Amino acid sequence: MSPDRLRALLARVAAGTLSPEAALDEVKHLPFEDLGFARLDHHRALRVGFPEVIFGQGKTADQVATLATRLLAGGHNVLVTRLDAATAAEVVPRVPGLVYDAVARTATCVVEPPAAETHGTVLIVAAGTTDLPVAEEAFRTLEAFGNPVERLYDVGVAGLHRLLASKEQIVSASVLIVVAGMEGALPSVVAGLVDRPVIGVPTSVGYGASFGGVAALLGMLNSCAAGLTVVNIDNGFGAAVAASIINRR
Amino acid sequence: MSPDRLRALLARVAAGTLSPEAALDEVKHLPFEDLGFARLDHHRALRVGFPEVIFGQGKTADQVATLATRLLAGGHNVLVTRLDAATAAEVVPRVPGLVYDAVARTATCVVEPPAAETHGTVLIVAAGTTDLPVAEEAFRTLEAFGNPVERLYDVGVAGLHRLLASKEQIVSASVLIVVAGMEGALPSVVAGLVDRPVIGVPTSVGYGASFGGVAALLGMLNSCAAGLTVVNIDNGFGAAVAASIINRR
Amino acid sequence: MSPDRLRALLARVAAGTLSPEAALDEVKHLPFEDLGFARLDHHRALRVGFPEVIFGQGKTADQVATLATRLLAGGHNVLVTRLDAATAAEVVPRVPGLVYDAVARTATCVVEPPAAETHGTVLIVAAGTTDLPVAEEAFRTLEAFGNPVERLYDVGVAGLHRLLASKEQIVSASVLIVVAGMEGALPSVVAGLVDRPVIGVPTSVGYGASFGGVAALLGMLNSCAAGLTVVNIDNGFGAAVAASIINRR
Amino acid sequence: MSPDRLRALLARVAAGTLSPEAALDEVKHLPFEDLGFARLDHHRALRVGFPEVIFGQGKTADQVATLATRLLAGGHNVLVTRLDAATAAEVVPRVPGLVYDAVARTATCVVEPPAAETHGTVLIVAAGTTDLPVAEEAFRTLEAFGNPVERLYDVGVAGLHRLLASKEQIVSASVLIVVAGMEGALPSVVAGLVDRPVIGVPTSVGYGASFGGVAALLGMLNSCAAGLTVVNIDNGFGAAVAASIINRR
Amino acid sequence: MSPDRLRALLARVAAGTLSPEAALDEVKHLPFEDLGFARLDHHRALRVGFPEVIFGQGKTADQVATLATRLLAGGHNVLVTRLDAATAAEVVPRVPGLVYDAVARTATCVVEPPAAETHGTVLIVAAGTTDLPVAEEAFRTLEAFGNPVERLYDVGVAGLHRLLASKEQIVSASVLIVVAGMEGALPSVVAGLVDRPVIGVPTSVGYGASFGGVAALLGMLNSCAAGLTVVNIDNGFGAAVAASIINRR
Amino acid sequence: MSPDRLRALLARVAAGTLSPEAALDEVKHLPFEDLGFARLDHHRALRVGFPEVIFGQGKTADQVATLATRLLAGGHNVLVTRLDAATAAEVVPRVPGLVYDAVARTATCVVEPPAAETHGTVLIVAAGTTDLPVAEEAFRTLEAFGNPVERLYDVGVAGLHRLLASKEQIVSASVLIVVAGMEGALPSVVAGLVDRPVIGVPTSVGYGASFGGVAALLGMLNSCAAGLTVVNIDNGFGAAVAASIINRR
Amino acid sequence: MSPDRLRALLARVAAGTLSPEAALDEVKHLPFEDLGFARLDHHRALRVGFPEVIFGQGKTADQVATLATRLLAGGHNVLVTRLDAATAAEVVPRVPGLVYDAVARTATCVVEPPAAETHGTVLIVAAGTTDLPVAEEAFRTLEAFGNPVERLYDVGVAGLHRLLASKEQIVSASVLIVVAGMEGALPSVVAGLVDRPVIGVPTSVGYGASFGGVAALLGMLNSCAAGLTVVNIDNGFGAAVAASIINRR
Amino acid sequence: MSPDRLRALLARVAAGTLSPEAALDEVKHLPFEDLGFARLDHHRALRVGFPEVIFGQGKTADQVATLATRLLAGGHNVLVTRLDAATAAEVVPRVPGLVYDAVARTATCVVEPPAAETHGTVLIVAAGTTDLPVAEEAFRTLEAFGNPVERLYDVGVAGLHRLLASKEQIVSASVLIVVAGMEGALPSVVAGLVDRPVIGVPTSVGYGASFGGVAALLGMLNSCAAGLTVVNIDNGFGAAVAASIINRR
Repeated sequence: MSPDRLRALLARVAAGTLSPEAALDEVKHLPFEDLGFARLDHHRALRVGFPEVIFGQGKTADQVATLATRLLAGGHNVLVTRLDAATAAEVVPRVPGLVYDAVARTATCVVEPPAAETHGTVLIVAAGTTDLPVAEEAFRTLEAFGNPVERLYDVGVAGLHRLLASKEQIVSASVLIVVAGMEGALPSVVAGLVDRPVIGVPTSVGYGASFGGVAALLGMLNSCAAGLTVVNIDNGFGAAVAASIINRR
Repeated sequence: MSPDRLRALLARVAAGTLSPEAALDEVKHLPFEDLGFARLDHHRALRVGFPEVIFGQGKTADQVATLATRLLAGGHNVLVTRLDAATAAEVVPRVPGLVYDAVARTATCVVEPPAAETHGTVLIVAAGTTDLPVAEEAFRTLEAFGNPVERLYDVGVAGLHRLLASKEQIVSASVLIVVAGMEGALPSVVAGLVDRPVIGVPTSVGYGASFGGVAALLGMLNSCAAGLTVVNIDNGFGAAVAASIINRR
Repeated sequence: MSPDRLRALLARVAAGTLSPEAALDEVKHLPFEDLGFARLDHHRALRVGFPEVIFGQGKTADQVATLATRLLAGGHNVLVTRLDAATAAEVVPRVPGLVYDAVARTATCVVEPPAAETHGTVLIVAAGTTDLPVAEEAFRTLEAFGNPVERLYDVGVAGLHRLLASKEQIVSASVLIVVAGMEGALPSVVAGLVDRPVIGVPTSVGYGASFGGVAALLGMLNSCAAGLTVVNIDNGFGAAVAASIINRR
Repeated sequence: MSPDRLRALLARVAAGTLSPEAALDEVKHLPFEDLGFARLDHHRALRVGFPEVIFGQGKTADQVATLATRLLAGGHNVLVTRLDAATAAEVVPRVPGLVYDAVARTATCVVEPPAAETHGTVLIVAAGTTDLPVAEEAFRTLEAFGNPVERLYDVGVAGLHRLLASKEQIVSASVLIVVAGMEGALPSVVAGLVDRPVIGVPTSVGYGASFGGVAALLGMLNSCAAGLTVVNIDNGFGAAVAASIINRR
Repeated sequence: MSPDRLRALLARVAAGTLSPEAALDEVKHLPFEDLGFARLDHHRALRVGFPEVIFGQGKTADQVATLATRLLAGGHNVLVTRLDAATAAEVVPRVPGLVYDAVARTATCVVEPPAAETHGTVLIVAAGTTDLPVAEEAFRTLEAFGNPVERLYDVGVAGLHRLLASKEQIVSASVLIVVAGMEGALPSVVAGLVDRPVIGVPTSVGYGASFGGVAALLGMLNSCAAGLTVVNIDNGFGAAVAASIINRR
Repeated sequence: MSPDRLRALLARVAAGTLSPEAALDEVKHLPFEDLGFARLDHHRALRVGFPEVIFGQGKTADQVATLATRLLAGGHNVLVTRLDAATAAEVVPRVPGLVYDAVARTATCVVEPPAAETHGTVLIVAAGTTDLPVAEEAFRTLEAFGNPVERLYDVGVAGLHRLLASKEQIVSASVLIVVAGMEGALPSVVAGLVDRPVIGVPTSVGYGASFGGVAALLGMLNSCAAGLTVVNIDNGFGAAVAASIINRR
Repeated sequence: MSPDRLRALLARVAAGTLSPEAALDEVKHLPFEDLGFARLDHHRALRVGFPEVIFGQGKTADQVATLATRLLAGGHNVLVTRLDAATAAEVVPRVPGLVYDAVARTATCVVEPPAAETHGTVLIVAAGTTDLPVAEEAFRTLEAFGNPVERLYDVGVAGLHRLLASKEQIVSASVLIVVAGMEGALPSVVAGLVDRPVIGVPTSVGYGASFGGVAALLGMLNSCAAGLTVVNIDNGFGAAVAASIINRR
Repeated sequence: MSPDRLRALLARVAAGTLSPEAALDEVKHLPFEDLGFARLDHHRALRVGFPEVIFGQGKTADQVATLATRLLAGGHNVLVTRLDAATAAEVVPRVPGLVYDAVARTATCVVEPPAAETHGTVLIVAAGTTDLPVAEEAFRTLEAFGNPVERLYDVGVAGLHRLLASKEQIVSASVLIVVAGMEGALPSVVAGLVDRPVIGVPTSVGYGASFGGVAALLGMLNSCAAGLTVVNIDNGFGAAVAASIINRR
């Protein structure tokens, strides 16, 4: 949406010939910026409640840097996910203010603080040390979208006492993201302890018959704890987006 | 938890020797009723926010009737899911007040109106006519848990105008459950239109390479619409529980 | 092995021309009875530690009855597994003393009490009511092989308190068989609580992405609880054989 | 087919002892050139409507260069697909006129303009930026076969407005190739908008439960939009051949 | 679209205040009839080039009869696919003029002859006798959409001479649908013989490692004959729709 | 091939204008009888070494009876495989001389004794009683094609002594067909004992993770006994054809 | 558990105010050390019968070294599994006493001899040379836990005589671990020879349809030798833990 | 078998106290050489008809060189398969006379010409250029075992004329090995043309839904050409062993 068009629109609102709701509706669905290789969605936040995020995997450093620069030019915060270290090394120097997190494989640049009206704290529970990249991707995303976040890591079901020792923290969360590889049983156990939304994230951690996370995914989909919902294998970002939407007042 | 034990507990609260929080905590985790073939969880609602529900599939009429009777005796509402018509015909006459819905394959008996403090209306969107049993299982569950619910059916992505014609209804829902078989694309499209939580339910509708709902499940797990969460194939009940927890104020 | 041959063998042992060990060895590996459609292994118990058992699935009533009769004629106890009700109705009247258990789908006839030198009690833990047929197949097999057995049913991981309420019973077992369908997480949790052998039995209980027990099987194979071993889906019999061998002094 | 043989054949046509149709028929099915490691089909265009194309994957630089040189010697245009950059670097200097496209991974050399009698323009629609290599392989192939081609990229179903903004372009195409990874829903939506042939190309873009493009493939095969046909994962070339055959007058 | 609305629209066209193209565009995308369990698309033919077809599988006789009646009331021809014999026996008496074909499992009622401007004849080639139901579903659909159709059955690749004996018929078709189960190799062979569009339909014919048609599906997707496109297993209808769109002048 | 055409052909041979080899070649590839639903291959034996066999599965009683009658009319022996009991009950009375074997699910009618020049005896080895239908299908096929055949049943690898007791019989066979379900290990063990061709036939016998014979199939394909070849699950017929071709002198 | 807390506990036991059993129970379930990225379980041996072991795969050298150092500080023996050579090269110099085994990919440091009350010798049987890494992982683990261990390698079922030549050694073992890739048949054969517990370990050795060990895994799960239990593909460690628990007196 | 033992055995034969058959039998099953990491089978040729072959994949250069040296020391020819170029570069210099073929990935050293009594020529047919490594592995193996061999390459089913042009060569082979990737249809077509044994070898050539050769494998297993047998994906060696056994007089 060009500044001119937006100006004209607002003028009509000001003049009373367009209601604010109608204006909002128009702004929600039209605008994107055609970069040839991509159509950048500057108004995604208005429409679906969270801003355009750059999925780094499979994109060249050039493409990522261009998209990040255009978002910043539009006054948006930047979040890049699935950005490997090599690409990040090329992108970061070209985008002032961009900060890379090697564990979470994310890059962020905050130009205006995200809105913060939430129901409470989102808790990220992870079964093992090797699940951290996925858990931290969720952490960075939740942070970028303005949620209070806490972490509870290495509490797999084969040592229940480690989980139960943190029961206070668990039951007081507003939304829970539970990250687990291997048999993926942790979300079932956690969902049986709380009365708040629980989102399971299977990870590709494991070997042999874990089939790259399929065992964990099936474990969560077939959970005997009703009410658990699930996202794709290793999709810490998607779980964080869902948790953020739920947590938004 | 026997009435005596509960009485003693409350007496201690009354006497000030037990704080209400401690009492609640004790009540939450202990009690179940051992029926031999099952351990009935009378206090599930206190712990996880929704009452014990009877999963009918694979249970005999005898087992279902006994469980329903025990729940009623405990003063709980009854919801039986996945109850086929033949078993229902045996169970219903034995449980006064139980009502069977042949499309949703549920039986319900409401003895006290469910609490009704919700954020708004849950909307169930279904792609095709043959997805109705799953959609209606979700409907009955949401209703039983006290949520306002609306339906929007037969709006598959191959005829977008049928979906877009109901856009008002879609964007004003508080939580959305989107039910689809075959390619399972509908939740992606819906999640791209709203800023509220969307839960996808793949169904086993289809043939050939739908593999009993696997195609739809994979479609939803790999959605390009971030924030979509997913439940097991045909699990209308699970989606409704998740939506109900999210929708609870 | 014909009686004559056995008599001759024993005569040589008696005469000191054959050591008892050598005689045992010969007896162990040679004898079977060729029935045309089957080669009945009368000395399996000597060789692998448990007697020939009749796998009923896919066999005609005629074949089952013949095999049972031949085993009885050889002085062996009879255990038939996977015997559906229809076939059982034909077989039982033809084999005096045979008793059918419709839940476990087994038929047994005990002519001499099984040896009873064991390390202790085998505990069968089952996640849900619908897992009972598999759990009871294990029960009947353990019983037939002379083990003390206990049951602990309907203690799924979504309601941990029901499991933990029986912790005494769990930690005092000598061997544990843990039966679970759906996500198959129960064996992981149990194996994290005890220092005795735990055998997981996935069941085909579930729907959708449970894929007839595959989800539970993968859950157990990928357990984060090291030391858990697994048998085929619904194979209560196999788990019981393994437990019995371990439990034998 | 040796020049001599072709000369003799044409002499017979000229003399009226062979009808042109009979001559064409003979030319269609016989000739190929045996290179030892390959049998080069010089007359494929006559038989199936498009010339022999070199599939570069798994071939050595030597083999590719030899095949390209032989095709040029036969007076044919050259199209190499699935040619990785390393092999291309060896092949290109050895084949005068060959041009490599690193995104499409194709190499082409046009010695005579392809015939151009078509029904209209083929439109390539791609869901995301990372689908470009497959889309561009289709583009180069369509171009090589003489079709007018247009591109419409980054119009995934989670932001329908980006697609609908180009509806004019979509409905005026003569044939459509729709390229999508992840859930592969875009072809269903596009096929619901037009009355022209739509060919879906699933791509291996994605992670986790996308299973290297299987999710997208299943999504397209199970499309609720009847009339959609599908090719193998990442097979931009195959889709372009099919579209070219359909588009040929 | 209500008659009134259509009348007003046409009045504006008549008055010159709306161009015919704009009117057509509006008519194309809006109208459907909400039957509660379904949204009947009366103008599908205008939009995607073929009329609304009733997919019978999973629908009750009541639903099918209602939909057929509503279509007839709208002046449309009726085609029901995947209609099993039992449902057909209930539906046919309730819909005057409806004719059932037990092999193809279709029911049709033609009230106005379909438009007939085509490029030529569609040829349906089937590998074996057991592929007939799928081939005949395609036949009935092509017929219903106004295409000249021919059949060539039982010409599997293990007896090439049976196929090659009909080469004239094969090369003179305008579009070819090739139906095959088991290894699904026939479409590859046929596509190597012609220069016209070939659509492969894998069938679920086979046993063991045919996995309900997966072997045939994979065979066609991986065809070495470029340009072959594929539809879902047993989807004779979808292939016919695609062929019909291609064949339409 | 019409009688007239055959007569003319033979006349040319008689006159010395056609060599016998050329005549044989022509007879081999042309003739089939078009029955509409099938193209009956009367000369298959000449071409591939075994006569046309009727695959009964998925065919109506009418189709089977017609095909059998036409084969008999052509002077050929008849073998029908995969003929279920219900269809057989309809077919047998209509085809004089046809004999049904309920275990093998075959029907045969021998009008001229099959040629009998073989290298020796084919031995069919089967792991268990429930593998008999597949083993007997192979038996009936081998018999129909004129091979001496022997059987060795119920010699699974968990009781090696039962197999080794028949080692003489095993090593003296000319070709071996080894039939096994469950883990499918028997062919590996047998192939390690002999220096003759071994063909493995996986069966669908098993449950749970046998996946309808996939476990046995994979076991045989991955055999550490080099030289073992494999056919489809339950394909006793195919194994017998292969063994018969190998065994033919 | 801090030294202070442990001291206080023991003081109460000494004073007779806490029974030894109660003290043991408390010690068993509470203590772990929170390292941020991991919760180190210092008392696992008390609870499940074997000490905390470090799973090296997916951990950084830093994390492994820290965990090993903390375990040593707690007076525990150290066993690291799945430690690749590169990480080992960084870890070993930082942890005094740590010894790396490149075949088994384990690192060990023994500070106090493990308890040695066992039932006998554990025998590790491996089918082929390429199965050695998995077999040796089991060997190092069994050794670390104080079991007498023997090896029997390269005795695949295609050359039974190599296996049978060691029958004495096989039948005298107390527990057997049988490691095999490809078709995974060896455990079935071994389990048919002995009356002691047999644990099968499928390996990822193979190619093509071995699917990374799936063929071997399925072979073992579907074994006709009842009583065989199985662990995950390549999980030599898990098999050794199970064997060790069984072997412990 | 030690020389002494062999000497003694032969002495008994010479003395007439042992029949030659009995001696052969004893020699067949006993001897192997225990190298620690492997048990080398010096008499495999006597038992199963082809000598011990070294499977190079997963073995170290050291292990391969040791095994080759030991075989040569025993007077056997050496064939190493699946030997990658890097390992070969280390092995070849250490084993005098060993020759490496980089396409077939085999190394051979012939010290005595293999026996040559065969039924005829084995023909290797390959569908495409990229199937050559597998076809050549078969070629080298057949050659090593003393068979006359011919090649026919790049004759895929999409250009039948290339195959049919060599029909003479095809029908005159004694055994045929048909190698194909992608859809794997070539063996079906070839088996329909000949009356000799045909062995299909699926290759991992392809991409996308070829799933590393699974599509080709399934195509061959489900072939409509009865009598085709199949080996594992890429198993040119196994096909050659089977062909060699069949071809041996």
